[in-house]
Amino acid sequence: MSFLTPSVANNTPMSFSVGTAARLCAALLAWLLAGGLALAQTQGPKVSHFTLDNGLDLVVIPDHRAPIITHMIWYKVGAADEVPGKSGIAHFLEHLMFKGTKKNPAGKFSQVVATIGGQENAFTSQDYTGYYQRVPKQYLKEMMDFEADRMTGLVLTDQVVLPERDVILEERNQRIDNNPRAKLGEQIDAALYLNEPYHKPVIGWRHEMEQLTRNDALAFYRKYYAPNNAIVVVAGDVDPDAVLVDARDTYGKVPKTHEFAPRIRPTEPPPVAARALTLADPRVEQPLLTRSYLVPSFATARAGVSEALEVLAHILGHGANSRLYTALVVGKKSAVAASAWYDSNALDMTSFGVYGVPAPGVALPDLEKQIDEVITAIAADGVTAQELERAKTRLIADAIYAADSQIALARWYGTVLTTGGKIEDVAGWPARIRRVTAQQVQQAAQRWLQKKRSVTGYLVKAPAAAAAAAKPDKRT
Amino acid sequence: MSFLTPSVANNTPMSFSVGTAARLCAALLAWLLAGGLALAQTQGPKVSHFTLDNGLDLVVIPDHRAPIITHMIWYKVGAADEVPGKSGIAHFLEHLMFKGTKKNPAGKFSQVVATIGGQENAFTSQDYTGYYQRVPKQYLKEMMDFEADRMTGLVLTDQVVLPERDVILEERNQRIDNNPRAKLGEQIDAALYLNEPYHKPVIGWRHEMEQLTRNDALAFYRKYYAPNNAIVVVAGDVDPDAVLVDARDTYGKVPKTHEFAPRIRPTEPPPVAARALTLADPRVEQPLLTRSYLVPSFATARAGVSEALEVLAHILGHGANSRLYTALVVGKKSAVAASAWYDSNALDMTSFGVYGVPAPGVALPDLEKQIDEVITAIAADGVTAQELERAKTRLIADAIYAADSQIALARWYGTVLTTGGKIEDVAGWPARIRRVTAQQVQQAAQRWLQKKRSVTGYLVKAPAAAAAAAKPDKRT
Repeated sequence: MSFLTPSVANNTPMSFSVGTAARLCAALLAWLLAGGLALAQTQGPKVSHFTLDNGLDLVVIPDHRAPIITHMIWYKVGAADEVPGKSGIAHFLEHLMFKGTKKNPAGKFSQVVATIGGQENAFTSQDYTGYYQRVPKQYLKEMMDFEADRMTGLVLTDQVVLPERDVILEERNQRIDNNPRAKLGEQIDAALYLNEPYHKPVIGWRHEMEQLTRNDALAFYRKYYAPNNAIVVVAGDVDPDAVLVDARDTYGKVPKTHEFAPRIRPTEPPPVAARALTLADPRVEQPLLTRSYLVPSFATARAGVSEALEVLAHILGHGANSRLYTALVVGKKSAVAASAWYDSNALDMTSFGVYGVPAPGVALPDLEKQIDEVITAIAADGVTAQELERAKTRLIADAIYAADSQIALARWYGTVLTTGGKIEDVAGWPARIRRVTAQQVQQAAQRWLQKKRSVTGYLVKAPAAAAAAAKPDKRT
Repeated sequence: MSFLTPSVANNTPMSFSVGTAARLCAALLAWLLAGGLALAQTQGPKVSHFTLDNGLDLVVIPDHRAPIITHMIWYKVGAADEVPGKSGIAHFLEHLMFKGTKKNPAGKFSQVVATIGGQENAFTSQDYTGYYQRVPKQYLKEMMDFEADRMTGLVLTDQVVLPERDVILEERNQRIDNNPRAKLGEQIDAALYLNEPYHKPVIGWRHEMEQLTRNDALAFYRKYYAPNNAIVVVAGDVDPDAVLVDARDTYGKVPKTHEFAPRIRPTEPPPVAARALTLADPRVEQPLLTRSYLVPSFATARAGVSEALEVLAHILGHGANSRLYTALVVGKKSAVAASAWYDSNALDMTSFGVYGVPAPGVALPDLEKQIDEVITAIAADGVTAQELERAKTRLIADAIYAADSQIALARWYGTVLTTGGKIEDVAGWPARIRRVTAQQVQQAAQRWLQKKRSVTGYLVKAPAAAAAAAKPDKRT
């Protein structure tokens, strides 16, 4: 019952800085499995795709290494689909989905998963909400039965809703309010997206979370949880046709009640003003700066642009050979960390980020100036053939290795399919990365890494006295 | 058919810097009439208030100086009530309200007003939409008849809607896109309001305006234009009871079709990060800086807080005796203009602003630092008894003089009544200002003029080459 904070969903440096694993999950992951590098570079796994009569999509990814399956259900709804004033309801509902149905009272589903040695979790982003179990293969149909049951059978009472609201408030406390980096990321997103709903945090604004009710959750549930708004992804040691039979026997019995229109959300006006913000917090021991640029996602980009941004992020700020690292950490020694990232998976315009932690004695504005110089150099002079080749090879290899995780692989498919992509887009990703040219990378830097498209955030230490002030504003 | 740009509606310095008249209209205006200062200081005009059976509110303000009346209708709906993705529809509908009804074809209403020597206009803000005519008194009922007719009788065809959409797009061009100061104000509001709908411009984002349709306009019209969502304000040489009879004969015949719930909108999370933005435009000849703080409006403030902010704005930045002016323009000669403003009239949290234009050779960050020192001094040391007295006297006197304009007076009542105030609140304004203490002013500066509550905007000249860049983002 975790959720993707904006720092993961919108991929701010908070997730990047903790290591590459999360990054891989969130942004590249894998299009193939088993088979190793040779197979990987030629073709992905043979993925099957079915649509049931009630509109439910079923994707089956073979992985015969062990008698295990990962069963995921993805709903094409996330925080960005919430109505104004109800922020956090998508994630709150994700929690409430564990509160039981008439057929399966609260706790039973999780208990079964635990009893059979499985693992389970759930996640909410701006664009999707997902639930999964990894269990021995013979339990697949039972998992499907549980998920199909709670797709429309959820029973909610105030007795379970109100304590769970305290749980999500505490989750916000831990993940955002007591985490200055996450707070900074929240503020950056709020300043970056002027009109897109990515503007607000996935977990919700606290004052709105406090007001969420059982009826809010049920209204959201009834509107969005339906077979024709869901994608089931099964990865593991299965036969696709057998999976289809099981899916028909379980999910296939949930009636479609209404149609879903394509998700057309408010879009961004052209950015015109460079923005900056400073979050001062007494708990900050290490100042840092992070900048997000408004850039196209795979779903909104012209062909090749999203891939060029992937390669650009890699060359600019991924690993010890990257431009930022070599210039600032190794060269000038003005930073102890410096990186860049790009999140291609979003229904709407997304963000490209750069991140830097100054060395002792270096002021944030000076570090920012040096980061700007690195970016300007790529825009002016482009990248070398060697950099380009190394970035492509590494991006593709990382994806292959990441695919060793069955959950990560299933999640990659689910993410792409719920953010405007198709199955072929996953399989075609390595080939598209291969085709990126040095010119495209340079053009991406010129076109998209313009300061007026960006928000720069500084995290600084505040005197302890400043901590007390944040009180609600109404009638005060 | 004008509209209140965000610079007026949200009262950024753009309106303030053009002179005090607009400022008075927008923020204080008058609670009294004729009668002069003596009467003014003791009581306002005898305002009558009626509610018709269909829920329409009628406010009559006597003004017998000339045989003229001002007839206004205010709808309790503005840009902040638009659904996401349809920005600009409130203002677009305001334009379309002149396109005629079955009974009165396009142009007839305006032609009658012109023929009888009257004047008319209309305006849209975040919180309200209004229409008025100033005509010889004997035409009041005829004006009411026209307005009652178009309250529900509007006829719209694509033939009139589509060309008018070009008109509002051109209006946006002139008012915002070709006006760097207004663009800066738009960006500041977008960064200041993280969750309130004041976040988006009254006139709308261009890319959304371009998509507005006849159906959008009609849906908004049918939802919000109704007798029980309207306030008619009549100021002039009239007898209130006779006005009531006329109103019943005209507006009284429009049936109420549905109820209106109180306007509860998304509210702001507590501000945590000081924000800054820079708008670079080749047309800028004079750099400037302006800062907005998120502060309570009269409607959201505890008793006395809004009035303390009025006095604070006056002492800090109104006129040549103000702190900012004496410190920066007269003293250090670092600025050629410096001022402050506060807009109390808003249903939700509003803004308090400071504004400075640097003297030649003075950098914006240096001027900003000096402005900060002036603000810090008030927060630390408070204001003098003399400053307090002068501010109160001037605020009240300004209101009295502004009330010499019948239109301005009627507009003041309409504004207060559509932003959460009552008739008594207008009449009680001078007494409430009188009661403000030096301690309240200091506390207001301490509590509300905190940097983390603010967005600071710089307007700077950009090289001409930078002008070309703003293209739409979708699929590019």
